[in-house]
Amino acid sequence: MGQQDFIAVDWGTTNRRAYRIREGQVIDSMQDALGVTAVPSGGFEQEVARLRACLGDAPMLLAGMIGSNRGWMDAGYVATPATLAQISAAMVAPMDGVHIVPGVSHVAQGRGDVMRGEEVQLLGAICANLAPSDALLCQPGTHCKWAWMTDGAIARFVTAMTGEMFALLKQHALIGQEMTGEISAGDAFADGVRDGARGDLLASLFGVRPASLLGLRARADAAAYVSGLLIGADCAAYATGQRVHLLADAALGALYASAILQLGGQAVRIDSRAAFIAGATRLWENLT
Amino acid sequence: MGQQDFIAVDWGTTNRRAYRIREGQVIDSMQDALGVTAVPSGGFEQEVARLRACLGDAPMLLAGMIGSNRGWMDAGYVATPATLAQISAAMVAPMDGVHIVPGVSHVAQGRGDVMRGEEVQLLGAICANLAPSDALLCQPGTHCKWAWMTDGAIARFVTAMTGEMFALLKQHALIGQEMTGEISAGDAFADGVRDGARGDLLASLFGVRPASLLGLRARADAAAYVSGLLIGADCAAYATGQRVHLLADAALGALYASAILQLGGQAVRIDSRAAFIAGATRLWENLT
Repeated sequence: MGQQDFIAVDWGTTNRRAYRIREGQVIDSMQDALGVTAVPSGGFEQEVARLRACLGDAPMLLAGMIGSNRGWMDAGYVATPATLAQISAAMVAPMDGVHIVPGVSHVAQGRGDVMRGEEVQLLGAICANLAPSDALLCQPGTHCKWAWMTDGAIARFVTAMTGEMFALLKQHALIGQEMTGEISAGDAFADGVRDGARGDLLASLFGVRPASLLGLRARADAAAYVSGLLIGADCAAYATGQRVHLLADAALGALYASAILQLGGQAVRIDSRAAFIAGATRLWENLT
Repeated sequence: MGQQDFIAVDWGTTNRRAYRIREGQVIDSMQDALGVTAVPSGGFEQEVARLRACLGDAPMLLAGMIGSNRGWMDAGYVATPATLAQISAAMVAPMDGVHIVPGVSHVAQGRGDVMRGEEVQLLGAICANLAPSDALLCQPGTHCKWAWMTDGAIARFVTAMTGEMFALLKQHALIGQEMTGEISAGDAFADGVRDGARGDLLASLFGVRPASLLGLRARADAAAYVSGLLIGADCAAYATGQRVHLLADAALGALYASAILQLGGQAVRIDSRAAFIAGATRLWENLT
């Protein structure tokens, strides 16, 4: 007898992606810009009805910022080391037939970190044998997650504001006016990775304008160089000489893979959508 | 017979400070917000007349962004190692009786840096025996300069966007909303210095919000912690175990001195106004 269909939603701050899943396979999906900040307080039951009108009636599993204090209901955090069974057991139900996945917190030596939504991909990557059960996984983006998995559990993790910093610099810093060129994993990006690994990021960033002034770098290369600096600083802290399983889109995945390779590591690209579906399915199976 | 009076102007992007100097002593001074960006193209001769109306007729020595391509006349750069005599010889005169000090450039291993205005303080600190002729000097601020002096010359230097980064984060980053507290060299600042020296700045910055969420740090301490992170990252790159001569105002000088001490270095505070006056006077003596 087959498992009942369910709908898994990756419901973030500014976007949501919903999948109707039958026996581990996506049979229908949708995505839109109705992230949690776009839904008025008290409007989530109606949003659930709308998603069901689109994908068909079924119980739902919601992951991401929907479970934060800015979302529908605060689902709290499971502390590291966090297993799939623990996360499944800690889900909360804001209404019948709707379950929200908790986040994961990590505290060590007085420093803390949190994730909310990424845990489904991380655990799913292991479930689907996309990565071994002891591995370093990386999810690049606005807030880049580095997660060390042990025996299939999220043992520890750290978040770097890599993507947010790039956007901040481009939009608001004095060097932002130079950061208009295309970004690819070419020579300027590689120079950035090399300098980003030096450990003097604040000086390397300042150096962007003098490099143009003094004719040391073409202005069109500034954006790629800064991208390399930030990704290089990020990867140098965690990936040097390591095997890293990357959960990223094509463009960002190519940049991170290039930086990791340059720093003497190995990058293994993983399908992040497949990881999410596998993680959601296993969480659902645990629940039912 | 005494040297003729002259007027030294530290003419920056947003401010200017002018001093009438007689035999190395300031006999009158003024400052206002008429930085180079506030003066319309073609308006500098009139501004010179205004300064003379205020401080009395005298020849003038202008330093800072006034000598950039956004100022009155591009005075170029003297390459490191830059001596006082070389800088004096490279001054340009946009009109009779007015001399503009060139900047200094440093290029090494493909990386470049520039300064414009700071060189007068640096060389003046040595002239006035405020620092030995072989020393590491630091000028904290929006763009913090670290300069290594050798035989009284500016041998090499590097600039970090420390102050600009703090302002960017406070005004535009997600953690900015937490950065509202007072900043002093207390425990939160010291924690920041310690973490800033770890070499994972992008992660430490992200950690500000989780630390509040998880109750690991009082929200009122976030600004001091971030200040410590940035100043700590800055000082860890250059000041660890070093004797650093600081040219800074009281508030920033206290923070840098505390960070340098924490990182095993020694901080010697120098009067930056006295250094500027001494540097301007010696440049003027060389010229006349």
